[in-house]
Amino acid sequence: MNIFKNKTWRVRISLFCLVILLNVLVFTNSGDTCPYCNKTFYDELLNSRANTLGGRELLASIQNQEGISGVPSVSGNGENAGLVNPVSLEENPVTPGNTKGPKDFIEIIKRDESLPIPMTSFVPQNVVPDKKVTIELAEGETYIGRGVMFKGFTTNGTIPGPTVIVDEGDIVDFTVVNKGTIPHGASIHAAYTQTSKYLGKIGAGETKSILFRATVPGVYMYHCSPGGHAIPMHIIFGQYGMMVVKPKKKYKMEEIMKKKPDVEIYLVQHELYSSGKDAIEGKPIYVMFNGKIFRYVDEPISAKPGDFVRIYFLNAGPNLISTLHIVGIIWDYVYWQGNPNNAMPGGQTVLAGPADSWVIDFRMPPDEGTYTLLNHAVGSADRGAIGLLVCDKNAQTPVTIKSDGPVYSAEEMKDIKSKLTRTISPFEPGSPDVDPPVVYGPETKEVTVKIIGNSFSPKVLHIAPGTTVKWVNEDVFSFMEGEFSGIHTASSYEGPESFTSPLLTHTESFTRKFDKDGQYKYLCAPHPYMKGLIVVGEPESGAASSFGWIKWLSVISFILILIMLLVLISLRKRYGLIPKQSVAT
Amino acid sequence: MNIFKNKTWRVRISLFCLVILLNVLVFTNSGDTCPYCNKTFYDELLNSRANTLGGRELLASIQNQEGISGVPSVSGNGENAGLVNPVSLEENPVTPGNTKGPKDFIEIIKRDESLPIPMTSFVPQNVVPDKKVTIELAEGETYIGRGVMFKGFTTNGTIPGPTVIVDEGDIVDFTVVNKGTIPHGASIHAAYTQTSKYLGKIGAGETKSILFRATVPGVYMYHCSPGGHAIPMHIIFGQYGMMVVKPKKKYKMEEIMKKKPDVEIYLVQHELYSSGKDAIEGKPIYVMFNGKIFRYVDEPISAKPGDFVRIYFLNAGPNLISTLHIVGIIWDYVYWQGNPNNAMPGGQTVLAGPADSWVIDFRMPPDEGTYTLLNHAVGSADRGAIGLLVCDKNAQTPVTIKSDGPVYSAEEMKDIKSKLTRTISPFEPGSPDVDPPVVYGPETKEVTVKIIGNSFSPKVLHIAPGTTVKWVNEDVFSFMEGEFSGIHTASSYEGPESFTSPLLTHTESFTRKFDKDGQYKYLCAPHPYMKGLIVVGEPESGAASSFGWIKWLSVISFILILIMLLVLISLRKRYGLIPKQSVAT
Amino acid sequence: MNIFKNKTWRVRISLFCLVILLNVLVFTNSGDTCPYCNKTFYDELLNSRANTLGGRELLASIQNQEGISGVPSVSGNGENAGLVNPVSLEENPVTPGNTKGPKDFIEIIKRDESLPIPMTSFVPQNVVPDKKVTIELAEGETYIGRGVMFKGFTTNGTIPGPTVIVDEGDIVDFTVVNKGTIPHGASIHAAYTQTSKYLGKIGAGETKSILFRATVPGVYMYHCSPGGHAIPMHIIFGQYGMMVVKPKKKYKMEEIMKKKPDVEIYLVQHELYSSGKDAIEGKPIYVMFNGKIFRYVDEPISAKPGDFVRIYFLNAGPNLISTLHIVGIIWDYVYWQGNPNNAMPGGQTVLAGPADSWVIDFRMPPDEGTYTLLNHAVGSADRGAIGLLVCDKNAQTPVTIKSDGPVYSAEEMKDIKSKLTRTISPFEPGSPDVDPPVVYGPETKEVTVKIIGNSFSPKVLHIAPGTTVKWVNEDVFSFMEGEFSGIHTASSYEGPESFTSPLLTHTESFTRKFDKDGQYKYLCAPHPYMKGLIVVGEPESGAASSFGWIKWLSVISFILILIMLLVLISLRKRYGLIPKQSVAT
Repeated sequence: MNIFKNKTWRVRISLFCLVILLNVLVFTNSGDTCPYCNKTFYDELLNSRANTLGGRELLASIQNQEGISGVPSVSGNGENAGLVNPVSLEENPVTPGNTKGPKDFIEIIKRDESLPIPMTSFVPQNVVPDKKVTIELAEGETYIGRGVMFKGFTTNGTIPGPTVIVDEGDIVDFTVVNKGTIPHGASIHAAYTQTSKYLGKIGAGETKSILFRATVPGVYMYHCSPGGHAIPMHIIFGQYGMMVVKPKKKYKMEEIMKKKPDVEIYLVQHELYSSGKDAIEGKPIYVMFNGKIFRYVDEPISAKPGDFVRIYFLNAGPNLISTLHIVGIIWDYVYWQGNPNNAMPGGQTVLAGPADSWVIDFRMPPDEGTYTLLNHAVGSADRGAIGLLVCDKNAQTPVTIKSDGPVYSAEEMKDIKSKLTRTISPFEPGSPDVDPPVVYGPETKEVTVKIIGNSFSPKVLHIAPGTTVKWVNEDVFSFMEGEFSGIHTASSYEGPESFTSPLLTHTESFTRKFDKDGQYKYLCAPHPYMKGLIVVGEPESGAASSFGWIKWLSVISFILILIMLLVLISLRKRYGLIPKQSVAT
Repeated sequence: MNIFKNKTWRVRISLFCLVILLNVLVFTNSGDTCPYCNKTFYDELLNSRANTLGGRELLASIQNQEGISGVPSVSGNGENAGLVNPVSLEENPVTPGNTKGPKDFIEIIKRDESLPIPMTSFVPQNVVPDKKVTIELAEGETYIGRGVMFKGFTTNGTIPGPTVIVDEGDIVDFTVVNKGTIPHGASIHAAYTQTSKYLGKIGAGETKSILFRATVPGVYMYHCSPGGHAIPMHIIFGQYGMMVVKPKKKYKMEEIMKKKPDVEIYLVQHELYSSGKDAIEGKPIYVMFNGKIFRYVDEPISAKPGDFVRIYFLNAGPNLISTLHIVGIIWDYVYWQGNPNNAMPGGQTVLAGPADSWVIDFRMPPDEGTYTLLNHAVGSADRGAIGLLVCDKNAQTPVTIKSDGPVYSAEEMKDIKSKLTRTISPFEPGSPDVDPPVVYGPETKEVTVKIIGNSFSPKVLHIAPGTTVKWVNEDVFSFMEGEFSGIHTASSYEGPESFTSPLLTHTESFTRKFDKDGQYKYLCAPHPYMKGLIVVGEPESGAASSFGWIKWLSVISFILILIMLLVLISLRKRYGLIPKQSVAT
Repeated sequence: MNIFKNKTWRVRISLFCLVILLNVLVFTNSGDTCPYCNKTFYDELLNSRANTLGGRELLASIQNQEGISGVPSVSGNGENAGLVNPVSLEENPVTPGNTKGPKDFIEIIKRDESLPIPMTSFVPQNVVPDKKVTIELAEGETYIGRGVMFKGFTTNGTIPGPTVIVDEGDIVDFTVVNKGTIPHGASIHAAYTQTSKYLGKIGAGETKSILFRATVPGVYMYHCSPGGHAIPMHIIFGQYGMMVVKPKKKYKMEEIMKKKPDVEIYLVQHELYSSGKDAIEGKPIYVMFNGKIFRYVDEPISAKPGDFVRIYFLNAGPNLISTLHIVGIIWDYVYWQGNPNNAMPGGQTVLAGPADSWVIDFRMPPDEGTYTLLNHAVGSADRGAIGLLVCDKNAQTPVTIKSDGPVYSAEEMKDIKSKLTRTISPFEPGSPDVDPPVVYGPETKEVTVKIIGNSFSPKVLHIAPGTTVKWVNEDVFSFMEGEFSGIHTASSYEGPESFTSPLLTHTESFTRKFDKDGQYKYLCAPHPYMKGLIVVGEPESGAASSFGWIKWLSVISFILILIMLLVLISLRKRYGLIPKQSVAT
């Protein structure tokens, strides 16, 4: 569909661009997201896009859900878009510990109480909790070791976020504070109940909560979840952590050892990406345990010979599998998903896909030395997923290693920042060795930039004046909920000239010719953290430049030749052919 | 091995090309496959290839198997190549329900009947079935949402094919009709018995059947299986579906809930590819549930609070893993491979590799709202593997969602086709944004096209006159059975000049120089759906063209200079050096 | 960090280069590794690198571990670097079968004896073993079928290495002989005890052993493990095999069938790579069972109808998952990790990540024919992971298929070598169709070579005189143990001029300008098997060359024009403007 061939569209786009440009001026100062994007897009769905295949499908999707209670409605208000009010239970007062809900739920709850399996996690939202958990979500950067800074998103300032530990049966008040400048949210895998409508999207500066009962023991992932396309995106950007629901029933190995573990290791394996495209294709630049490449090579974990060790293992992914192995260890028992009812003896590895988990119990052998902990998928091991478990009779145990990402003091961070060798980011240009400018000479007439995984690919472009850039949105998922979903623009915010594309959905494109030299910085209006750079000017090196001087040499030569020809011709005009003239003389 | 340096070979190739060319003229009209390819290749194995490593290995492989009854023999007849006659049981009449086979089998069957585990699926081929299943296989295109058409292969016109449901113990007549123009076939994972010789290769227009008893309950994949290299290929092209064998024994959760599920969802996750190379490398362009990207975002599945929900989950792959998760749900019980004897409680995900399956049981929590269903491997989620399960007290249940791909009326399809924004195909050129022409200027002398995953890579090439194209077969698997296996040609069927390569196996190559401007369309003779395009002509834009005018400018300048020099020299010849002459004057 | 801007560094580098160059001259003859690299790097950590982030982290890591007994210390001696003496037990004599250790261990061993789970594998190192196993590690090449030779590393001359089979409870003497020219080592997953300090690094020519008791039944991987970054590298290069600990307890299916399996297949699936970059990114060029692509297509495995078949399956990886499937078979029982206590009935597949294993039991159905064995992840199947299991009433069983890679006689190998169509290697240039030269014309001023996965990427470079090459080390893991870890150089060993880089760690780079025509062969001093080639000279074909003649044509034209201008000017000088002159005449 070429939306630019249509007159109504051209008018619409022009007006839209104006609005976006004004917005761009606003966000680039405030850092806030475009509050009109979802609204504008919805209007477009109702009108100009109503007859495209994608538009029709999205619209049907929304209308199908309109009659359903509890389903998000679309609104133009950025803070509330995609959210309905949480269930109100005020007419039905409850006392602490009372898990009976409003009358609609009573029948279900009664039935579930009679079953020989755990209840779901549902509790009325006004009961008194046993545990309170608060996490703070924001955009930010984290130091991941070996001189590398990651610019992404954080939970309590770190990647992974805090290790949340509760007991089976606890009523948990899980509070999410958005300290960032864009919408965030939370998905809590330990909650067996509706969470999206409570935490599915939380505007900048807002705080929201849910109460739920942790009924099924296990090792769970929690992660940012601002709705739609933004759910995978914020996971890619680093917002996740581990939540453990400790069982009432003892893990089999505890019964056998007749004690708690001497060493408890909460271990999150996770991948970081230097572009959205790599994230969609599952090609991480680093893979690590608990927030730092080779963290436990630099700070080995120690245990005494004979110690009972437990690993709470979560592969946060978000794309690759992990086969966790420790050189010199065969597991005594592993428990699939951390549930004590899923015990299996023996094994050299556990296999975990993204969001998979295990509890792993074993003993340190009598023999001292280093036991290397690694993902046996060597591509990941080599990118950072290796650590050391040192068996040492002088080790201080019991000890607990949490999965929280490393924390640095302001002073340490200042020092780190002064010594960085590399910066990576999934959504904006990092160091030149990670995001080198892709250079095109003047002979290239059109260059394509793919928009994929909430990032521009390539992020940095060097083109000659007169080159046209074509942006194509390859992000597939346009869903009218949460952080603006899979709809993107390319909107300049600094440079010799201004430009902005209309809102683009999957397969749609925008083209612009760049004639004027200079640096054009641009972003995506709905996702202003997505940044790109276009440098317009004759490349300093490469084919084009050397090509350039030849071009000029050829042209100058040709002009000189023409001049000389003119001279010769003028000679001939006045005297006829020189030879004749000379002869005449 | 350079097969072109050898004289015998050159003769052979010349003759072969002639045969192929004649064939090409035939298929391009009939759409049928080259009936001589396997035969020709077998002859080559016996003669000219007998002393190559690959040829020797293949030949040994065939000869090793020749003495074995039931093993495919090679024949030149396309319809029967690689197939022996199905077991004939006519001399041993059986009555309905009688599973005793010919005397060879009786001992085994008696033994198996005495074992406390399920029988295999073997039944004589003339018993009366309990269920009859018929699937139709063909090449064809399917609409996969968001404006995108997929050109591949289909089962009953859709991807995935029909959901086949039988009961444990049923004798199933599984009939496969080839409605296409090339060989197809079937592999039925629910059958614990020989299937290859019955359904391993079915010629265009043919119908074949197998009878088997579904003895092991579970969730299974079935897929096209025309033998050898074509098995993975036809899976890549979309021919698969889910078959469920419902157990006699109740799943544990049914015992607990004392009822059947209120909501049953048959869910196939599958990947689609836009090139054979991407398919071999596991880089899908879309990943989806039941045939459409974001199908259940557009048409959410509804359930009432408290409903008992079951998902029959198959990851058809064909390459990536899936960790299925539902936001807000912890499983009550999952059953590995859908077998009720493999029950595990709890868990936030199930991990499924290609052709892996699970049955997943859970309850809708009391709280209404949207529960998002997704592959937690975010690269796949983002490419389309997301759906919505809406908890709504007004939902109409019980309800069953089948895994069959969407069906459109002729009118709907006509409308869809008029509005498409993109076409993709693993084996022929799709939309320009998916398969852009790869452009080379006149300065490039040789360009390589890789043949991989039954596709040319790149599919579209733009070269200057005088450029040589080299095709290298990177497909590894050349097996003398089924659809012509991993042997390819590049054979023109439209364009200014004709050409064809000999049959190429792994690492073999063919080169041809293109001097004449025009569009050369070509295909692979053994697999005529594999298509490529070579455009010969000066590229309109890019380095080459601007390079072109400079080249001409330089040459013209040089010629002019030479002319002027000649003039000057002729002046000098007649008058000596001009200055002298002038002085003389 | 630009280490070249610092004066101290420049001096240091110069001296270092001299040392390296001398070394290079030595190894290229001896094939031995640089004995100074780890020492030099350690000195640098203490001095010049002490204030970089990476240097500080590595140093802290080493110092953290210094106080720990059994932890490797750094030394400059290549043979012993990273190794401490194995535990000495001489003061505590033991009798055969006596597993009591020195007094430190007695308490742990006593406790473990009282537990209802297997003991760990620890035994004193002077007991008398029940089984002796010896493997020989070396660099070398193996023929992998279809005309392809793999240059990598081997175990007993093959890939995979020998199938090691012991019984539960056996005390195993596992001896590792380094027959190569660089350090090797071993990690034995079947050993539930410290192995790194015994076998973690074994110098060229050395032999080392460990004694351990095989206490946990199952199917295990063993692999080369020379410490640090070299562990994943030597796995990539092919050094691994299967070790099976047969259980005392019968597998469930043996109880049911009341006999041992008729057919036992030890099956290792593994990937081979043609570059380190591909290995890190998980993009194998071939995937196979037991050392040869399509090995069991060429030599099918036979079984009689009704036979009881067992597969001991190990996915050695090292990166991809496998879903093993046999067309026509549903498993009777599978046992996770080969442990008889983890029995699960039914299933069409088993899912195995890298280093995952299963035991799989099933019966051949009564019906004869071919049952195809494959990895249902089709990208891998298509690259070679397919085999045939033929059901034939005349098959000779019982039969055992071992997982050892194929062995060829010297004569066979000579014949194979004369007929090869392709050579691949993860660390040095293979055939031109696998590692084609990457060609740059004179217009390109700088080219980057990435050092990743112990290989140069691209391995072969063709540049014009005057081009600068920049090597960037992308290998992340620099750990001061074992084979020199993740630190690399680019050091010439043949060519018109000599050069060497300093030791580079992650993100560090080295640049050199190449002015002189010729072939520069270079290697990495710490890993001399890593090889690269730079060809300097005007490319014969491609843009650059045709670009070249235009350049010269332009320049010549311009010079001629200038000469003519001078002639014209000299004319004018003597006679004024020719016209005037003429008029004057």
